[in-house]
Amino acid sequence: MNSAGSEPALIGLDWGTSSFRAYLIGADGGVISSVAAPEGILHVEGGNFEAAFGRLVGPWAAEHNVPVIASGMITSRNGWVETPYVGLPSGAAELAAAMTTHTLANGRKIHFVTGMTAETSGAPDVMRGEETQIAGAVAAGGGSGVFVLPGTHSKWVAVEEGKITSFATFMTGDVFGAMRGHTILGALMDEGEGSGAALLRGAQASRDGGLGLLHSLFTARTLPLFGEITKSEAADYLSGLLIGAEVQGARALAGDHGQVVLIGRGDLNTRYAQVLEVFGLKAVEAGDHIVARGHF
Amino acid sequence: MNSAGSEPALIGLDWGTSSFRAYLIGADGGVISSVAAPEGILHVEGGNFEAAFGRLVGPWAAEHNVPVIASGMITSRNGWVETPYVGLPSGAAELAAAMTTHTLANGRKIHFVTGMTAETSGAPDVMRGEETQIAGAVAAGGGSGVFVLPGTHSKWVAVEEGKITSFATFMTGDVFGAMRGHTILGALMDEGEGSGAALLRGAQASRDGGLGLLHSLFTARTLPLFGEITKSEAADYLSGLLIGAEVQGARALAGDHGQVVLIGRGDLNTRYAQVLEVFGLKAVEAGDHIVARGHF
Repeated sequence: MNSAGSEPALIGLDWGTSSFRAYLIGADGGVISSVAAPEGILHVEGGNFEAAFGRLVGPWAAEHNVPVIASGMITSRNGWVETPYVGLPSGAAELAAAMTTHTLANGRKIHFVTGMTAETSGAPDVMRGEETQIAGAVAAGGGSGVFVLPGTHSKWVAVEEGKITSFATFMTGDVFGAMRGHTILGALMDEGEGSGAALLRGAQASRDGGLGLLHSLFTARTLPLFGEITKSEAADYLSGLLIGAEVQGARALAGDHGQVVLIGRGDLNTRYAQVLEVFGLKAVEAGDHIVARGHF
Repeated sequence: MNSAGSEPALIGLDWGTSSFRAYLIGADGGVISSVAAPEGILHVEGGNFEAAFGRLVGPWAAEHNVPVIASGMITSRNGWVETPYVGLPSGAAELAAAMTTHTLANGRKIHFVTGMTAETSGAPDVMRGEETQIAGAVAAGGGSGVFVLPGTHSKWVAVEEGKITSFATFMTGDVFGAMRGHTILGALMDEGEGSGAALLRGAQASRDGGLGLLHSLFTARTLPLFGEITKSEAADYLSGLLIGAEVQGARALAGDHGQVVLIGRGDLNTRYAQVLEVFGLKAVEAGDHIVARGHF
C-alpha cells in the first residue's frame, strides 16, 4: 500500500543481523516512504547504534514527532537494547504491552519490540523480528493460519484468532550455505541457471524419506558423480533436499490447513511454493511491507 | 595380531584422502610391521604417487618380493590409478577378481582394489577403501552382520554369507564440522572436557524425532542460550544429535540384528556405542589392522 497522501503516524525500524529498513508509516497504516541500507547490527561501526540511527533516520525523526518502534535482532544481546522474550500464546496486544522503551541523548524515545519464545519438542525456540512481520500479516490478511518465513533460519508460525500459538525454527539456509561452502558437496557444484527439475527431485527425495537427511545429502555428491544430474543442477537439488526436509519436519504445524502464507523474498518464495506443492500444500503470498503493518 | 615370526607374504596400502598406512603382512595374515604417514592423496606433492610410494614403502618393497595391494581413495579419480566400481552383492572373491594392476617404472606391480557402488533409496551410493576393511572384518569375525564405519562420511554395511548386500553413506562428520565451524551454532560452543550427558540428550532428541533434523539443530543454539546446557556441552549435544540422526536413518539396515560391529577410531567408537544404545542396538568392536586382513 502506498500512502503518500496520508499523515505520518509512526516510524518503524526493521533492523536485522545483515540489513536495515525503516518505514515512515501513515495514519492509515500504509507506508509513506522507506529507507533500506546494508547496515545490519553486525555492520554498525563500534556498535554505535544511536549514531547509525541518526544518520539513517535523523531527517524523518526531526521532521515528524511520531513514535519510533524497532524490531529484529537490534533487540538481541548483540543489538542496541536487549528485550526479554514473551511466551505463547501472544498477539499484537501482548507484544505492544511488553515493549522496552529507550530514551536517546536528545530525549527522543524508541520502543523496542520483544522477542518470542516457544517450547517445541522439549527444547526452547526463539524469534526476534519475525513476530512483528506475523502481526502485520495477521492484520492484513485475517486472524488464523500458518505463516512461513523462508531464510537462513526459516520460521513456521501457527496463528489462531490473532495470536501466535506455536512456532518452530529450521536452519535450512544456514545449512545450505555450510554444505555448499564447507563440505565435500561443493566440489561437484557449478553455478547454474536454476533447475526446477533438480529442485523437485531433491524435494521428492526428502518427502520419500529413505534413510534420512544425513544420507540423502550424500546423494548431492553421487548423482553428479554418476552423471544423473549435472554439476550446475547440483545446488538446486541440494536446495530441494533441504527445503523438502524442512517442510517434511514442519508439516505437522500446518495441521488441517491445506495452505500456508509465505512471507519473504520473491525468488526464495518461488522455490518454497514449488516444494510445498510436492507435499500437497498450497502457498499464498503475503503482501509487501508486512513489517511496517506489524509496527502499526 | 602380531606376526613378527611369520614369513612376509604381502604389502598392503590403505591410502586415503588424508592419511597413508602400509602393512607388511605375514603368511598367516597377521601384521609383521606397519607404517603410518600424514601423506593422504591430497597431500602428495604434485600428485607424484610413485615417488611417495618409493619413499614410504621402498625399503620393504626392495627387501620382500611380495605382491602389493592398494585400497582407499588412492583408487579414485583424484588418486593414482582410478578403478571402476563393482556392484552388489560382492565379497572378497569379487573384489579380488576385479582388481586393476599397475606396473611401476622398475617393473614392480601394484594391484588396486575397486570401489563399490549400491543403489539406495533411488540414488547411487559409493565407497572406496571401506569395502576392504569389511572384507577384513568378515574374515576375522564371521560371515554375516552389520558393520558401521564412523567418520567424515560414515558407512553402514550389511553383509550376508561373506558378501556385502547393501550399504549407505551418512555425512555425519562432515556436517558436524560445517555446522560447528560455519553456521551460527559455533558462536555458543566452547571447548569442553566432553559431556556424556549432553551427547545422550542430543541422541534422544533425534530418536524422538520431533520436527526433524533442520529444526533440532537449532536447539544446539537455544539450549545454551537459555542455560539448559553449558557452552562447553554444546558440541557434545550437537554430536549426539547428528550421530543419533544417522542411527535413526540407518537402523533399517540393521534389520533383525540386535547389534552392529564398529570399525574405527577408539574415541569416536565410544560415542557411537553410547548413541547406539539409545536406539537399543549393541555395539561390538572389530579388531585392529582390519584393512591388512582385508588385503590378505
